[in-house]
Amino acid sequence: MNVTVWNENRHEKQNDKVAGIYPDGIHGAIAAFLREAGLDTKTATLDEPEHGLTDEVLADTDVLVWWGHKAHNEVKDEIAEKVKQRVLDGMGLVVLHSAHFSKVFKKLMGTTCDLKWREADDRERLWVVDPSHSITEGLGEYIELEKEEMYGEHFDIPTPDQLLFVSWFEGGEVFRSGATFKRGKGKIFYFRPGHETYPTYHNKEIQQVITNGVNWAANKNTPSPTYGNRKQLEKISDK
Amino acid sequence: MNVTVWNENRHEKQNDKVAGIYPDGIHGAIAAFLREAGLDTKTATLDEPEHGLTDEVLADTDVLVWWGHKAHNEVKDEIAEKVKQRVLDGMGLVVLHSAHFSKVFKKLMGTTCDLKWREADDRERLWVVDPSHSITEGLGEYIELEKEEMYGEHFDIPTPDQLLFVSWFEGGEVFRSGATFKRGKGKIFYFRPGHETYPTYHNKEIQQVITNGVNWAANKNTPSPTYGNRKQLEKISDK
Amino acid sequence: MNVTVWNENRHEKQNDKVAGIYPDGIHGAIAAFLREAGLDTKTATLDEPEHGLTDEVLADTDVLVWWGHKAHNEVKDEIAEKVKQRVLDGMGLVVLHSAHFSKVFKKLMGTTCDLKWREADDRERLWVVDPSHSITEGLGEYIELEKEEMYGEHFDIPTPDQLLFVSWFEGGEVFRSGATFKRGKGKIFYFRPGHETYPTYHNKEIQQVITNGVNWAANKNTPSPTYGNRKQLEKISDK
Amino acid sequence: MNVTVWNENRHEKQNDKVAGIYPDGIHGAIAAFLREAGLDTKTATLDEPEHGLTDEVLADTDVLVWWGHKAHNEVKDEIAEKVKQRVLDGMGLVVLHSAHFSKVFKKLMGTTCDLKWREADDRERLWVVDPSHSITEGLGEYIELEKEEMYGEHFDIPTPDQLLFVSWFEGGEVFRSGATFKRGKGKIFYFRPGHETYPTYHNKEIQQVITNGVNWAANKNTPSPTYGNRKQLEKISDK
Repeated sequence: MNVTVWNENRHEKQNDKVAGIYPDGIHGAIAAFLREAGLDTKTATLDEPEHGLTDEVLADTDVLVWWGHKAHNEVKDEIAEKVKQRVLDGMGLVVLHSAHFSKVFKKLMGTTCDLKWREADDRERLWVVDPSHSITEGLGEYIELEKEEMYGEHFDIPTPDQLLFVSWFEGGEVFRSGATFKRGKGKIFYFRPGHETYPTYHNKEIQQVITNGVNWAANKNTPSPTYGNRKQLEKISDK
Repeated sequence: MNVTVWNENRHEKQNDKVAGIYPDGIHGAIAAFLREAGLDTKTATLDEPEHGLTDEVLADTDVLVWWGHKAHNEVKDEIAEKVKQRVLDGMGLVVLHSAHFSKVFKKLMGTTCDLKWREADDRERLWVVDPSHSITEGLGEYIELEKEEMYGEHFDIPTPDQLLFVSWFEGGEVFRSGATFKRGKGKIFYFRPGHETYPTYHNKEIQQVITNGVNWAANKNTPSPTYGNRKQLEKISDK
Repeated sequence: MNVTVWNENRHEKQNDKVAGIYPDGIHGAIAAFLREAGLDTKTATLDEPEHGLTDEVLADTDVLVWWGHKAHNEVKDEIAEKVKQRVLDGMGLVVLHSAHFSKVFKKLMGTTCDLKWREADDRERLWVVDPSHSITEGLGEYIELEKEEMYGEHFDIPTPDQLLFVSWFEGGEVFRSGATFKRGKGKIFYFRPGHETYPTYHNKEIQQVITNGVNWAANKNTPSPTYGNRKQLEKISDK
Repeated sequence: MNVTVWNENRHEKQNDKVAGIYPDGIHGAIAAFLREAGLDTKTATLDEPEHGLTDEVLADTDVLVWWGHKAHNEVKDEIAEKVKQRVLDGMGLVVLHSAHFSKVFKKLMGTTCDLKWREADDRERLWVVDPSHSITEGLGEYIELEKEEMYGEHFDIPTPDQLLFVSWFEGGEVFRSGATFKRGKGKIFYFRPGHETYPTYHNKEIQQVITNGVNWAANKNTPSPTYGNRKQLEKISDK
């Protein structure tokens, strides 16, 4: 299985705190633990040509992990559209944290994907609400993060196919923080945590969830429906 | 539309605090605001013959509201089974608070319906996660209850058809506190709040939700499927 | 409640057979039976200024019914976007037949919305798979249409929130022909039948379903979530 | 992974036609192709002590496959209850054909699980409606069975978590023939085909689906929620 971790990679260049937490970039940190889990993983970033997402790269990617925040608008429309089409064609997509506002996710959801937020070192608890799902393998009944950015309801997404985690925040909010969706032949996993100023992606449980999510999102040899005019179909009742 | 509010009505007789909050019983309080909303509402309680749920009463009930807590086991199996069958046949069911452990709800869900709980005056916030649903009409974006019993995940229910509210509790838990399910021709709404030692059912927003839930659960003239051997069906391909 | 029925209204002008079946246009036929059902109904068509969908019209519309087929591309992008935003803000949307390929529906779904089709006078049976839903009120266990255009799976839509009808076609196909979705505060009902060369919208059962769908999709005073930075929220733990 | 295939094994003993098609029993045929797929598979049948489902067997089973038809009532209540509890505790369950009426499935669903049927050699086409799901891996866009027993809607089950296949039958019916549900920590897959008088379990595509279903239903190290009184939880707001 081939994984590509895409990152905007701007905070890391502009903010010493973020660079200190993620010296190889958020993409580097995520790719590192996916490789340790045995997944063949490459990275791609915004400032590369075609954002690192050439036709060849996309065709070779089974699951794409996406992190973006401050530069969603710099992602070219044609690249976002190409990624969306590739998802519909069967590529898995793991959408992290502020990528709820990425062009690709919004196109696939059809809603604003808006939410509440606060940067105030809230404690977060991610409660497992579906303990039967492979994405929760290896966890306890919740994950606790001492400090994170708060994301609060209402999260303007379509009804998830599967709701896996609900977050509690110290300041009084809740959030559907782990959810799956299918679009076309593609499987999508949204996972909330990972604000750039916290070492969230160094947390072993968070790494477990993302690794599980990548494995879940990978599609192997599923059916390829055909579409359009089917006039020539013989009448079955002729038998 | 005919509504029946069923209540165990034991705490009210045995605990002065509860009797003080609900002098006419929890059933009386709920029936009162449903009547004010224009709904033709009767009550029934555990200690009546057949628990007040005769065949005639059930046949005449469009929506049944259920509150029970300490005497679930005293509900006769045959009555619980009859209520379940009536739901499958199209009667709406609104299940309140500790009725998550009622025989009827457990039979309809197929799971343990277990959860965490704590009586410690936790503050509760019920966040609306589906602002398109008629059960949320007339509300703001959340309901706040100063003190309630805590119910926490994991709540062992099947995947809800619709998730409407998620509760935040001061002590660190979350809960899927408003959810709908269909079973057969019947519509079911589970709504969490209402511990007997708090005046929750006097809260106007809680009353609004329960009233909306009753209206939503009522079924009018939906199709009646047929089942069993259909050997005599003529072949359509004969035309 | 205010309903607007939107129609492309091109087949009716260009094809005598269609004009014969729908002398007042498909929009006229649909508006007529909605008015008979007591709903305040207006119409709008593609060739009117702004396609008849001015800001004022949209603001005054509680539920929009949409029929389009051969001229989806002539719907201006800014109008399609405006309609989508109005749905997210709470307007109901009933999407009929070939409007599965309308710009508005595709934007809200996030998928291709593609399907199979055949114009060969197939017999269609729409089986009710959810007899608890208000949209099925007044029906028997299936609706039979002697001749219709075939639509077949795979229908490339996200998982419906509720699946209400599944169609059987004489030639060997099935189709999820009645399905609901929510997007933002808006409720969406897709309903398959209604090819322009058949008198489908004169069928009383089809009229019943569309009328039920309009009533179901109407939203009354549901909550308005707030979004964005919530830094000023007081810590609840201060109590 | 340990799989147990349970079969009533009565038709095979009493009906020469069935014995001819399945000389090793339906359980033998299913176990054979699961073993070929590399799965460690045992069998158990109704007439063994405890129906072959001792505590030890159940504890060692990761996924249980169930086929039953004419002797559902002979399955002891305490065994059915034990199997149900083991599913809630995480054992996968693959429910085949007429096992829709098994005690275990009905207990887990909470509905009648009733349906229409006809033994008239109807042609069946199982259309894939979710081409993103691992259970559909290796298939084309539909499976065709020349002759099978018809099962028709309405199928009285709760809303499936995932709908994978919809069947078309020659005689005019449709059926939700592949669907998943979760109950507690357990994953359940219902799959329609397999009437005892047809060689359906010798069909390579049907074998592929059942094998995929077993792999999907297996749970590995998912979280174990705790339930009950949580009074001692320290207040998070003390930090």
